[in-house]
Parts: sequence; structure tokens; C-alpha cells
Amino acid sequence: MIDTETFEQALEEIGAAVGEVLGSVLPTPGGPEAQLAEAMRYATLPGGKRIRPFLLVASADMFGVSRRSSLRAAAALELIHTYSLIHDDLPCMDDDDLRRGRPAVHIQFDEATAILAGDALQALGFEVLSDEETHSNPEVRLALVGALAYAAGSRGMAGGQMIDLAAENETLAIPEVTRLQQLKTGALIAFACEAGAVLGRAPDRQRQYLLSYAHDLGLAFQIADDLLDAEGKESVAGKRLRKDGVAGKATYVSLMGIDGARRQAELLADQAVGHLKSFAEKGDVLRATANFAINRVS
Amino acid sequence: MIDTETFEQALEEIGAAVGEVLGSVLPTPGGPEAQLAEAMRYATLPGGKRIRPFLLVASADMFGVSRRSSLRAAAALELIHTYSLIHDDLPCMDDDDLRRGRPAVHIQFDEATAILAGDALQALGFEVLSDEETHSNPEVRLALVGALAYAAGSRGMAGGQMIDLAAENETLAIPEVTRLQQLKTGALIAFACEAGAVLGRAPDRQRQYLLSYAHDLGLAFQIADDLLDAEGKESVAGKRLRKDGVAGKATYVSLMGIDGARRQAELLADQAVGHLKSFAEKGDVLRATANFAINRVS
Repeated sequence: MIDTETFEQALEEIGAAVGEVLGSVLPTPGGPEAQLAEAMRYATLPGGKRIRPFLLVASADMFGVSRRSSLRAAAALELIHTYSLIHDDLPCMDDDDLRRGRPAVHIQFDEATAILAGDALQALGFEVLSDEETHSNPEVRLALVGALAYAAGSRGMAGGQMIDLAAENETLAIPEVTRLQQLKTGALIAFACEAGAVLGRAPDRQRQYLLSYAHDLGLAFQIADDLLDAEGKESVAGKRLRKDGVAGKATYVSLMGIDGARRQAELLADQAVGHLKSFAEKGDVLRATANFAINRVS
Repeated sequence: MIDTETFEQALEEIGAAVGEVLGSVLPTPGGPEAQLAEAMRYATLPGGKRIRPFLLVASADMFGVSRRSSLRAAAALELIHTYSLIHDDLPCMDDDDLRRGRPAVHIQFDEATAILAGDALQALGFEVLSDEETHSNPEVRLALVGALAYAAGSRGMAGGQMIDLAAENETLAIPEVTRLQQLKTGALIAFACEAGAVLGRAPDRQRQYLLSYAHDLGLAFQIADDLLDAEGKESVAGKRLRKDGVAGKATYVSLMGIDGARRQAELLADQAVGHLKSFAEKGDVLRATANFAINRVS
């Protein structure tokens, strides 16, 4: 087992390394379009916990993938995640004015710039993956592009956000909330773990274990997010809380109660760890991640 | 030379073939996220002139590329172009309510759906390119992904749209308008021509000729668009016109006058055709495209 301190050091270290790659691939402001690059950098740097990139690097580490490769793939994933945060925060979407402890992009700049910055970050994510710096094997890079495009698109993250918006006028039950979350947040988390296996050219069986882990971890992570929304402190979370309750949104907390949701998150985290058996001690970082996912305060 | 009737038949035929590929790659509406797929299909099918996909297929034809390949790459390009139209039409961007003769996506659905549909179309474009159906050679598919991501991103189309938005508060001169247009509309037109050469694994020299052609064609196309905005009929164009004048935007027409702009468009179209010399009769379709670009009514 890895203790909390060691885990948090690894999270910080990998987060900083991903931040460096992001800084190097993001455009430098210049010319009359400078504001676009400024907004892209503002949204992406210094960033949040970088939990998705961390999962990708930790998964890739299990297969001995070079950090040079995994950090670039992780940066691409973070670019896609960041674009989705910018667009989700827009007034016509979730209407959030605070993100990662700072004004959301459409507040700091304006709505048009926020939309464009998100659009350009998405394109940059795929550009980074396609570049030979990311992996020497073209088939690996293509598999990453295809999997990330699928995870981000209408059958993944964007589809989940559509369900979330449509759900504002109706009350979802647990199976529907679960599907919503599997798409909206689960798809990129699944990509993070799968990408490690793709980069490491791991056998199918191991890839399946990682996907099962990601599936349970993603839901545990989301329930923890719902608990944070209901119980957390805005100053610590760096974003607006209590929004779900005000909007009357069905969440795991509204459907199961605080205690029920907490038990469910713990159950899922245990279940996630169960899929890592065959990795022996190589799975320790992912085990610690499951623990972190349900005990974080931001 | 190809006469107008033959050219227009080819345009229609390739447009229909691209439309079929688009219909097959676009998601089918279903589940609580159905509206997302509906909006994606609404925006993309039946579509406009499909001039960018046409350029791609015509360029690829010159190198004997199978239509199976070039139509898929063309469909990916059209997905990216369509996403940009949806986002550009939003109230905080160019605020257009009419597109391709029908209500814009944010009018027909709502703003959130329009943003998501654009986002998902962009992801789908890269997913289509990464798929082995598009080309058997992985390096070719990766080159397409990288080039399209670059063309769509902050150093291409999105950067051009940022300049356009920033220019609302100042008057640009001809060099600035030219750079704006090279990014905003020129980048995808250049990709269309370059992709033909990439798919056909054409020598560098031929790729350069095609890029020079695309450069001049793109500007000619844009000047024709400005002339259309100043002189055309909305019922024929299928979109709102006279917007540039009302907004006080600097365009080729406001800077050069109607006659000056028309002469400049003709000059650029001639110049574009000049780069096709070495292709002999294989360049006839692209020659006819240059003629079409400056004489179209929609």
C-alpha cells in the first residue's frame, strides 16, 4: 500500500510535469488573436488536481511506458477536459462563474472567447496526440486519437452533458443518473486508464481490467463530487457548490441520501480496487487513487 | 477546360456522395441525449454547396486516390466546417439566425444544444479520420489528423474567428483583413487541397503547388463572399446578407469598392489557376473551381 502522503506527492509531481507539457504545447499569445491564446492558457494553467492525466500516467507506468509518451497523452486528455469545463460553465449550459478558484473563462474574457478557446483546445488535444513525439508507433497514436474522439463525442462526454441538460425538466432515477455520469465524466476517466494500456501495448485482458476499474472509479468519483457539492466548502473546492440542490437536479445524494451515497462510493471504490488483483504491487498507485477519489475535499 | 454544366454536375455528384458518408458516420438519435444527434444531423444534412469536400475529392482525384478514401476525409472536413458554422452563428459570436436556408441550430434547438452539437461534430471529424476505413496507411491518417487539427485550431480557423471578433472595435486595413481570412476561411480550404496530396502521397513539389492554389483560391472565394454579402439575394444565398455593412466591418468590398473587389477576385482566381500548370489536364476540375468560386450566386 501507498500512504496518503506518498500518493499526494505523486499527484503533485505528475500534475506539475503535465503542466509543463501543457505550457509547451499551448500557443503563445501574439497578434490580434492574442486573446485566444491567453484564454487557452488561463483555463489550462495552472489547472486543478489533474486527476485524469494522473490516472493516465499511473496506468501507463504499470506497463513501463516512458513518461515522455504518457505525459504528452495526459496533456492531450487534459486539453479536452479543460475545453469541456469552459463550455459547461457558459451561461446557457451550467452557468458557473467560478472555476479552479478563479473567474470562469467567459467571466474573465467573454462568452465568444470562451467558446473559441474551448474549440481550439479540443483541436489542440488531437494535434498533440497525432504528433510523433507522443509515441513512435503510428498505430498507437491513431488508437489514442480514435478512443479520445469517441470518449469526447456524442456517444461519450458530449452525450452525457446533453442528458444532463435535458434532465433539468425531469427527475431521473438511479439507472439514468448512472448512465448520464458514465458518459459525462466516466468516458474521459475510462480513456485515461485505457490509454495507459494502449501506450503500453498491454494484452486485451489487462486492458479490460483497467476499463472495469475505471468504470467503478468514475462512478465513485462522481458520487464523491455530489457529496462535495452537498457538504463541501466553496473556498476549498474552488467552484460553486450547492448548485444541484438549488436546480432540483437528481444526484446520488438526492436519490440515496448523504449516508447512502457515501456507502455507495465506498463500495464502488472497493469494487474498483478488486479489478486490480492481477497487477499485484504494480496496481498500488491506482489503488491509492480509488481511496483518494472518495476522500478528497476538492 | 470543363464547361459550367459539367462542373456543376460534378459538384452535385460529389456533394451527394459526401452527404451519404456523413449520414452513415453521424450518430442516430436515441435515448435521452437524442436531441444532440438530431442537432448534429440537422446542421450537417443536407448541407450547403460542400465546396470544401469537393476541393478535397477533386485534389485527391488528381493523384488517383480511391473515392472511398477521399470521400471519408472530405466528410471529416465537412464535419469540422459545419461545427464552425454552428458556433459562429451563436448570439455571442456573429449572431445569425439563418443558415443554409433554414433556422440556425441555436434557433431550431437552443444555444446549449448548438454548442454541444458543434463540440461533438469536431470530435467526430477526428474520429472519422483516425479510422482505418479512411486510408490503409496509418501515417497518412495521422498526417490528416495533425493537419486538420492545426487548420481548425488557434493558429488556423479559430484564430481567424478571434481576429474577426476583435476587429469589431477597430478598422482593419487590407493586409490585416487578408491575414484574418487566410486563417478563418483559408486554413480549411488549404487543408482540403493538401489532404488530396497527402492521401495520394504526392511529392512535396506538387503539394506546394496545391497549397499555393488553395491560398489564392481561398482569398478569391472570400472576396466573392464579401461581394455576395453586399450585392446578393438572401433567398438565394440561404443566409443573412448586408451584415458586414451594418456592423461597419472592414471587408474587401468596404476597402476596395465593388469594382475593385471584383477585379481583385478575378486576379486571384487567375493566379490560383497559374499554379496548376504542371498538372496539365488533370488540373481541369480545380481550374473550373476557381472560375466557380468567383461567379457563384450563393
